[in-house]
Amino acid sequence: MTTPDDQGTESLLVVSAHAGDFVWRAGGALALAASRGERSLVLCLSYGERGESAKAWLAGKKLDEIKALRREEASRAAEVLGADIEFLDAGDYPLRESAELVDRIVRVYRRAQPTVVLTHPTADPYNGDHPAAARMALEARVLAQAIGYDAPGDPLGAPPVFFFEPHQPEQCDFKPQVLLDITDVFGVKRRAMECLGAQEHMWDYYTDLAKRRGTQLRRNAGPNLGLPHSVMAEAYMRLYPQVTGVLK
Amino acid sequence: MTTPDDQGTESLLVVSAHAGDFVWRAGGALALAASRGERSLVLCLSYGERGESAKAWLAGKKLDEIKALRREEASRAAEVLGADIEFLDAGDYPLRESAELVDRIVRVYRRAQPTVVLTHPTADPYNGDHPAAARMALEARVLAQAIGYDAPGDPLGAPPVFFFEPHQPEQCDFKPQVLLDITDVFGVKRRAMECLGAQEHMWDYYTDLAKRRGTQLRRNAGPNLGLPHSVMAEAYMRLYPQVTGVLK
Amino acid sequence: MTTPDDQGTESLLVVSAHAGDFVWRAGGALALAASRGERSLVLCLSYGERGESAKAWLAGKKLDEIKALRREEASRAAEVLGADIEFLDAGDYPLRESAELVDRIVRVYRRAQPTVVLTHPTADPYNGDHPAAARMALEARVLAQAIGYDAPGDPLGAPPVFFFEPHQPEQCDFKPQVLLDITDVFGVKRRAMECLGAQEHMWDYYTDLAKRRGTQLRRNAGPNLGLPHSVMAEAYMRLYPQVTGVLK
Amino acid sequence: MTTPDDQGTESLLVVSAHAGDFVWRAGGALALAASRGERSLVLCLSYGERGESAKAWLAGKKLDEIKALRREEASRAAEVLGADIEFLDAGDYPLRESAELVDRIVRVYRRAQPTVVLTHPTADPYNGDHPAAARMALEARVLAQAIGYDAPGDPLGAPPVFFFEPHQPEQCDFKPQVLLDITDVFGVKRRAMECLGAQEHMWDYYTDLAKRRGTQLRRNAGPNLGLPHSVMAEAYMRLYPQVTGVLK
Amino acid sequence: MTTPDDQGTESLLVVSAHAGDFVWRAGGALALAASRGERSLVLCLSYGERGESAKAWLAGKKLDEIKALRREEASRAAEVLGADIEFLDAGDYPLRESAELVDRIVRVYRRAQPTVVLTHPTADPYNGDHPAAARMALEARVLAQAIGYDAPGDPLGAPPVFFFEPHQPEQCDFKPQVLLDITDVFGVKRRAMECLGAQEHMWDYYTDLAKRRGTQLRRNAGPNLGLPHSVMAEAYMRLYPQVTGVLK
Amino acid sequence: MTTPDDQGTESLLVVSAHAGDFVWRAGGALALAASRGERSLVLCLSYGERGESAKAWLAGKKLDEIKALRREEASRAAEVLGADIEFLDAGDYPLRESAELVDRIVRVYRRAQPTVVLTHPTADPYNGDHPAAARMALEARVLAQAIGYDAPGDPLGAPPVFFFEPHQPEQCDFKPQVLLDITDVFGVKRRAMECLGAQEHMWDYYTDLAKRRGTQLRRNAGPNLGLPHSVMAEAYMRLYPQVTGVLK
Repeated sequence: MTTPDDQGTESLLVVSAHAGDFVWRAGGALALAASRGERSLVLCLSYGERGESAKAWLAGKKLDEIKALRREEASRAAEVLGADIEFLDAGDYPLRESAELVDRIVRVYRRAQPTVVLTHPTADPYNGDHPAAARMALEARVLAQAIGYDAPGDPLGAPPVFFFEPHQPEQCDFKPQVLLDITDVFGVKRRAMECLGAQEHMWDYYTDLAKRRGTQLRRNAGPNLGLPHSVMAEAYMRLYPQVTGVLK
Repeated sequence: MTTPDDQGTESLLVVSAHAGDFVWRAGGALALAASRGERSLVLCLSYGERGESAKAWLAGKKLDEIKALRREEASRAAEVLGADIEFLDAGDYPLRESAELVDRIVRVYRRAQPTVVLTHPTADPYNGDHPAAARMALEARVLAQAIGYDAPGDPLGAPPVFFFEPHQPEQCDFKPQVLLDITDVFGVKRRAMECLGAQEHMWDYYTDLAKRRGTQLRRNAGPNLGLPHSVMAEAYMRLYPQVTGVLK
Repeated sequence: MTTPDDQGTESLLVVSAHAGDFVWRAGGALALAASRGERSLVLCLSYGERGESAKAWLAGKKLDEIKALRREEASRAAEVLGADIEFLDAGDYPLRESAELVDRIVRVYRRAQPTVVLTHPTADPYNGDHPAAARMALEARVLAQAIGYDAPGDPLGAPPVFFFEPHQPEQCDFKPQVLLDITDVFGVKRRAMECLGAQEHMWDYYTDLAKRRGTQLRRNAGPNLGLPHSVMAEAYMRLYPQVTGVLK
Repeated sequence: MTTPDDQGTESLLVVSAHAGDFVWRAGGALALAASRGERSLVLCLSYGERGESAKAWLAGKKLDEIKALRREEASRAAEVLGADIEFLDAGDYPLRESAELVDRIVRVYRRAQPTVVLTHPTADPYNGDHPAAARMALEARVLAQAIGYDAPGDPLGAPPVFFFEPHQPEQCDFKPQVLLDITDVFGVKRRAMECLGAQEHMWDYYTDLAKRRGTQLRRNAGPNLGLPHSVMAEAYMRLYPQVTGVLK
Repeated sequence: MTTPDDQGTESLLVVSAHAGDFVWRAGGALALAASRGERSLVLCLSYGERGESAKAWLAGKKLDEIKALRREEASRAAEVLGADIEFLDAGDYPLRESAELVDRIVRVYRRAQPTVVLTHPTADPYNGDHPAAARMALEARVLAQAIGYDAPGDPLGAPPVFFFEPHQPEQCDFKPQVLLDITDVFGVKRRAMECLGAQEHMWDYYTDLAKRRGTQLRRNAGPNLGLPHSVMAEAYMRLYPQVTGVLK
Repeated sequence: MTTPDDQGTESLLVVSAHAGDFVWRAGGALALAASRGERSLVLCLSYGERGESAKAWLAGKKLDEIKALRREEASRAAEVLGADIEFLDAGDYPLRESAELVDRIVRVYRRAQPTVVLTHPTADPYNGDHPAAARMALEARVLAQAIGYDAPGDPLGAPPVFFFEPHQPEQCDFKPQVLLDITDVFGVKRRAMECLGAQEHMWDYYTDLAKRRGTQLRRNAGPNLGLPHSVMAEAYMRLYPQVTGVLK
């Protein structure tokens, strides 16, 4: 019989509150998908123009300039990662939840038919936009599944949802449940990060984090796997139970 | 590079408080392993002679008779499931934790070198032997990893640990994190259950549970997978993060 | 003195997101209330026309037809259970929270003056309408208590709130705190379920669940109670502490 | 059919780490049982001679004198509350867990056949004896249920277990799930407290607590119950689900 | 180097759902700040005119009269505590969350530049206004930090947030993490409470609570501190980690 | 009046399962205490000879050699940090809990009279010795407080307990509640780490961690504090509520 482990083509959807989030937190997953020849789509609900562009504001840039700058940087990063990207320009700080915005996301689901969904965790005491994006991504996913929901396209299946790692994981009740080995594509992720000139201080921060999660991956995988010393990893949580044909 | 997903031969170890636990709760995982040509070992810490043999006590059997009966039934069930089985005869109700018993389990780990470990969850307000078995299984696993621990054999790697489902899951804080598709081997599991004549009322109970977990598997896997209507499943929790090369 | 245990006439209010929920999850409680001669009211916020009527959509039915169908089925089920029923037709998938809808629910509380309230739990990653219904049911209950809230009728007392069981309990952090013995009225509940032709696959599912919760009830009640083997039960959680004059 | 609500004679067992605990924390429940003509047994695992008799130590008393003093005080308090009392003199600070001590408690269960069990919660960062007593009380209860456990008397049923309130409830993860109305017997409880001369500063502390829990009981019971203003209450948690025939 | 412990002038902001909350729950913290010569601001989102003025409604007062009464009482209490006070008159029961109201709170943050923020905890099953106030206070604080947020004044720093104690702490998952010694100013707090004539039954309730939290403070501070017997305290939780130069 | 904030001389006690733990996890706190002229004592329950000396075992060293090596390294590290050190040589992997060992720790508390205690958190699925050390450290602290406990010295006060950070914090339910600024003494900590030649791969790992926790400290302290960019920090949890005279 057919279990999910045997599935053919995967298709990744990343729902990101701001223009940069997908790079720091899921860049490895995107690069891995591209390396397997799979297509991915990044959906940025906003550009992060107010809350995550302090450098540009201090330099005296205007709102429209900042949005254009962020759009360009994110687009280049997505290209490096081998992913398509779309922007909903819904505003940030605050990213307001609304029926209309959820409906726009439902339509993306119906069109893209993702087999895997990545988004923010639902708690973050430092940044209200992240949980707002997550809540909308999750609500839209459930609505897209309903045959009676009035939007073009076939009803969605039940793609698993992974939460990527927030900036201060413990304060967001983030406990790694999946450690993804991104060693082979870390160079690509680093190049994507370097597209985001507005947040240069993050490049090394997220390189260090990948190293740290890699050390944990080695510890959890066991010494006998012949893993190289410099494993790099990303951490994820699952919203739904894993469905599998093999325990490992 | 080599990630755990590529690993060669797997070897399953099930640490079970009593003689029957492994059948009800992990029979499907064992049968699946056998169907893939992998070897498995079931380690029964006790026979469940006092706490889980009410029928035999009511029939006036003596302690030794009951232990022999349970041993025979469990051995036949293991055979049906394609697994080896060993008994430590450490006594039940209560199963007492001790340094000596933990050491015996360490030696099993060192000898069997399992790549996957299955045991009870660490909370069960209805049955103290189950958490006791789990605590010892987990402690022994960590000790077996230490090169300085004085026991024969090579240090153990870091096999993932899965908790199988307790009798009253919610009361044991058991939340399914992995749903294992056992449809193809459910017939084998049922035959193994039927070896346990002392607990006949459980046969249907655990058949119903497999059906229920199967329904949930279908819900979580999504409608587009072409799964048959009568999926059967077992539920597990993970103690450690999953290590993987692919998110799915 | 007067404790709640001595109270006279009880009056049950069930707040249900969709037209069918109250049957699967609280049908036993309703039938028991009727068997004691108490009045009950079921308040369906929507018909479940989009999210829980896949069969009708596949058969090519229109929205209005589906709503009429669901209304009729639910009304018949309520009649079998001996309960009154009202529909707010607020739409589903999504069931949108609004001040107006909450106000309509407040007015139902003020009018019905329930002494016990049943609704969905506040978490459900598979169905956003259920938590939305629960949040509104709870908010309306608190508002109805305030003497200063501008709606007809006397301020509400403090009826206890019970959450009924969701479809995938563990994933919704549902841990049974109350096991309700519905053995004597299970036949009635089954007949009510059979009124819901659109969801025939659920009849056996919820019969099995009642059996499973019944097995747990027997385990928790103890062997010395002379309970029959085939106890049927429903599981509930409490939102507020139980107030009582006797520990049992 | 017979549900627990219809049960005849109840019999309460309170397992208390030290000689005074049962008075402060469960005196109301004991007095209520006596007022209903039910029998109760208090089992004190130790006298609290080292950890809860600072006043006596400061007064220069010897160990044996202190134990005799505590025994006498506790016996008088039990008498006031209408309960039998037994002492196992197992030592305190620390109260050491052992197979032997658990076995002695099993024998008490088999002899007393309680229908309700009260003990400490399983967490208390201020006092290790309380969780130790709770763990042994719970383990013994499960062992006493096993027909194969070698001790005189019939196997125990499944009496519900209530945790009484610790000194710093929030720090012990104690969340009231049951508020017991002890208004009618509070005078008796106060007299029992006044038997404990060694801890006079506690009399008012636990009177204030009863008032506070009473205020909460009124809030949870609702204004329409005609409760007097000066309700007194004790708070409890349940270890197992409540089994009932009526939701209220 | 400069750590927060060395900081100069502190400035307290209390965000309160209703006119009275800040007195019962944070009156001690306010009086202490005044005693150190620091300025404080109380922001009342509503007057509590519908939900917390039962006495006035029963006396037949009109809405506007009640609001005026509450405003006057709260203003006098703030004066006694040495704090400024502002009212947003946003309505209560329910206090509705809105983008506009959050924006008004952002402007208060930008103007007042608080170094410490006090508000309600985010869970309260008895009162929906309290969590609503907390969510808006927290969202506004994060927005006020963003340089790109369009409101007058400098971006806010990162003032720590403390949740004050709700009426039924355990039911609101409130676990004291900070015990604030208010012994020296308790007389002031009592006088402030006595300004709130509409809720006279609370004066003793919150005096008792201060005594109870004081007893716990003594227990946690240790006997060797020479604290007087009659310590009075308030309890708080932290939303963010404490930043310090000394562990104590 | 006297609150803990005014206390005079502090005295730190660190209870460490193995010889190296105190350096990686609490070296900054120790160096800070020394820089303030306070005395500290490190109590190593074992040398970590079996479980944390893989390099020495691989080099063919004997047990006694390894213990001597670890003792010497740890002693030098303590000296660098300005702390006294004692070893109980109780064995590791497993570190067995016993009444005798707890009693030895009680005697250390009574002698050292610490005003602050640091130890491991109580959960660690990777290393059973750490929780065992923590449980004994906590039990001994409570016993040392009892006037009736038979050991030399005065009863202990109530020193606050801080849990230091485990190797995989999220897997151990470790959520930073206190971020300690160790910037000024980080050089000292690094030199102490470099005394531990057996675990050279940890030097950079814990330097990176200090940087990461420092970044979080800056985020939580706010931008307006004039903190340098390269803040270094250690993270801690509290077991008991903080007692204070000022909220900050």
